[in-house]
Amino acid sequence: MDLHLDLDRAPGGTLRARTEHALREAVRGGRLLPGTRLPATRALATELGVSRGVVVEAYAQLAAEGYLDTRRGGGTRVAGSGAAHDARPAGGGMVATGAAAGAPLHRGANVRGAVPPARFDMRPALPSVDGFPRQAWLGALTRVLRTLPDERLGYGDRRGEPELRTALAASLARRRGVRATPDQILVTGGLRDSLPLVWRLLRQRGARRVGVEDPGWWRIGRSAQESGLTPVPVPTDDDGLRPDALADVQAVAVTPAHQFPTGAVLSPARRAALVAYARAHDAFVLEDDYDAEFRYDRQPIGSLQGLAPDLVIYGGSCSKTLAPALRLGWLVLPSTLTRNLHDDDPASPAGTPPPLDQLALADLIERGEVDRHLRRQRLRYRKRRDALLAELATQLPGFPVRGAAAGLFAVLLLPDGADEQAIAERAADGGVALEPLRAPGRAGLVIGYANLPEPSAPAAVRALARALT
Amino acid sequence: MDLHLDLDRAPGGTLRARTEHALREAVRGGRLLPGTRLPATRALATELGVSRGVVVEAYAQLAAEGYLDTRRGGGTRVAGSGAAHDARPAGGGMVATGAAAGAPLHRGANVRGAVPPARFDMRPALPSVDGFPRQAWLGALTRVLRTLPDERLGYGDRRGEPELRTALAASLARRRGVRATPDQILVTGGLRDSLPLVWRLLRQRGARRVGVEDPGWWRIGRSAQESGLTPVPVPTDDDGLRPDALADVQAVAVTPAHQFPTGAVLSPARRAALVAYARAHDAFVLEDDYDAEFRYDRQPIGSLQGLAPDLVIYGGSCSKTLAPALRLGWLVLPSTLTRNLHDDDPASPAGTPPPLDQLALADLIERGEVDRHLRRQRLRYRKRRDALLAELATQLPGFPVRGAAAGLFAVLLLPDGADEQAIAERAADGGVALEPLRAPGRAGLVIGYANLPEPSAPAAVRALARALT
Repeated sequence: MDLHLDLDRAPGGTLRARTEHALREAVRGGRLLPGTRLPATRALATELGVSRGVVVEAYAQLAAEGYLDTRRGGGTRVAGSGAAHDARPAGGGMVATGAAAGAPLHRGANVRGAVPPARFDMRPALPSVDGFPRQAWLGALTRVLRTLPDERLGYGDRRGEPELRTALAASLARRRGVRATPDQILVTGGLRDSLPLVWRLLRQRGARRVGVEDPGWWRIGRSAQESGLTPVPVPTDDDGLRPDALADVQAVAVTPAHQFPTGAVLSPARRAALVAYARAHDAFVLEDDYDAEFRYDRQPIGSLQGLAPDLVIYGGSCSKTLAPALRLGWLVLPSTLTRNLHDDDPASPAGTPPPLDQLALADLIERGEVDRHLRRQRLRYRKRRDALLAELATQLPGFPVRGAAAGLFAVLLLPDGADEQAIAERAADGGVALEPLRAPGRAGLVIGYANLPEPSAPAAVRALARALT
Repeated sequence: MDLHLDLDRAPGGTLRARTEHALREAVRGGRLLPGTRLPATRALATELGVSRGVVVEAYAQLAAEGYLDTRRGGGTRVAGSGAAHDARPAGGGMVATGAAAGAPLHRGANVRGAVPPARFDMRPALPSVDGFPRQAWLGALTRVLRTLPDERLGYGDRRGEPELRTALAASLARRRGVRATPDQILVTGGLRDSLPLVWRLLRQRGARRVGVEDPGWWRIGRSAQESGLTPVPVPTDDDGLRPDALADVQAVAVTPAHQFPTGAVLSPARRAALVAYARAHDAFVLEDDYDAEFRYDRQPIGSLQGLAPDLVIYGGSCSKTLAPALRLGWLVLPSTLTRNLHDDDPASPAGTPPPLDQLALADLIERGEVDRHLRRQRLRYRKRRDALLAELATQLPGFPVRGAAAGLFAVLLLPDGADEQAIAERAADGGVALEPLRAPGRAGLVIGYANLPEPSAPAAVRALARALT
């Protein structure tokens, strides 16, 4: 711990006085923030080239003056009224954070977080964060850290670690019917972070206009636009995106297994029509397979990629299956697009996740832990969905529910002309976080159930019902 | 584990025959790759809605036919000659990878990696990967996973977790003299990944031309160009970048503490001149503080950011201090640039590292583990540098060595007209990985010593000397 104290610049006097002065100025000037732990006296003495007694006396003097705090266990710290540090729980070991962080904060069990949670957090993108297999993840990290050769701690492969790409090729083949070799797979920080790369690859192949689902995930269109492409809204209905409405687009972004946000499943006829359009027009399809692992009424529908591996860019992640906090995802690219991905190319991927995390995921996939976890979560979500739908039917019988028995959310349709935005805001005020449907000509609410344990369903729907009246 | 077997599409016959057929086709068609572990018979039976005996018989039949392999422990796997799977060590638990991964591979102690290591890996960007504090990192991850509230496993803050931003504000103030509040700090995956964001912010402020050091890190100029800025080479000499050569640039990228690749330290007069230029021309400075923690002859020089927090964008990372494999870094932004960083803005950061890793780093900083590690590494590097320089002086007395007693590398100057590229290639053939200097008018080699234990120095320099003759 180098304090950057400059004894030479301190005004003349004894070494002790100069040490004191330098430390005091460091605290006053804000270079040493409240709560910062100072080095042991012996270490600082060595660093400054003074005797230990000098530092002991300087610490004591500054503690007496109120700059330092030696009362608490764990050494000498910079004193101060910063809420950040006063609020830190005794044994936590992590820095709690105060108003200075500039984000709305709340107090968690042991650490304070960035977003104040609603009483019922039913945002549709959230998986069940209480189901994250912490012990298994820690076990995988432990095995990786115990066995990884030193040279693997370097910069790694920008396309992703080979172990994970191999494990993903096999597991996506098994679980999603994806057909790809490991060198078609790119490990990413999730679809959102990899979109700029997708658009760049498509532009290199001549794409100018990209069809995006309407309604759909707003970020897809926005991100395409930022990358110089023109997003073209394509209508969707209860069978998903309408390929007959595609015109003059060189790429189409689609959520075939479970349309976001309507919950529709792309019908077999439309899957075929979409592939036929792409083939006829030299277009690519971006398949966002965000929550397709979860189907409660039948086997999951295989990926569109499996039908046309040469035309489909497939994107998936752990955000819905394990936890968003892992920030681990993947792209599967047609082999014609995997050129230009070497490290020195402008198009080389950015934001590749840390190799240690990648290897932990490869370990869990290989051990079958991910499959076991998915089975548990599927059961859990089915029960939560059933409980939510039962409460909606009981308490809000006039409101139809839409969306396949799949994924993490359902859609509650509202009467024509209802102000879905205002209702969502009233629901938020009542402690229920959810999203308006934002579909042309329809009003509705997109309600996630992944984070709603069955016993909470009645109270959550009561709170929602109050927002509807 | 869903195998995506479609019994209905299998040709008629008994359930057992149809199960066999579906499994066989999955292996033949490549959907089940060699080495893939199949579900337990009971689990697959439940999934398919058949009795367990049906699956047991199907497995046995396909094993008999050579499609499956039941000999090894750990269940039934898809058979096959894939080197990937045959090479997997018995107890490793991680998937080793084969030629299919498309990258040159070598066999590590327990896992095979992506880059074949040289006998002496003296690339200048590499820290001592044998010094990574694995146990401390695992301890931090364990504490985070044991105490983090569930709701923190969601999407997190795109700017970085508040705990880490708070810890970084304090520790950068102490160690590097950086002056910033936590909300000026962005957590990144390292400088390289955050460059597009830096250029976007600078362009929003009107920048068109950016000064880049010559010689310098090639990626800075390339990345600026990809983002629509014009890189303008600025000469450097033994006092670092020459501010008197700046003309019509609205930004300057610089490595003040330890110029890459010359090893020069920006002189105090030039630090002042650079800040004066920026202030006079409304320009910003990008300070790449990549290895400034390591100074062997004196206290590290404080950051340029501390002189002009309103003009300097400061970038640092764990890549040189802990390990590149952590992929954790940070930007410190002038407060005028922190607007437009909210989540829904086009300029919102991408590639934010996983929150769990961020919290582990915050934990290690707060516990003083990072400071302890830096002290150990500084001692280790100083010894390694001394050993390398001693050997160079003994074995290659005619070749001057340049570069401050700092960082991870030194520069060996070559006679005028020497072909540094050819020499670097001959060195690589002889087992020594290093880089040519690529400076106008000078020939030299950039030699990292972080990964060269003292006992290896004589042999490494002997191998290098052979490339020079």
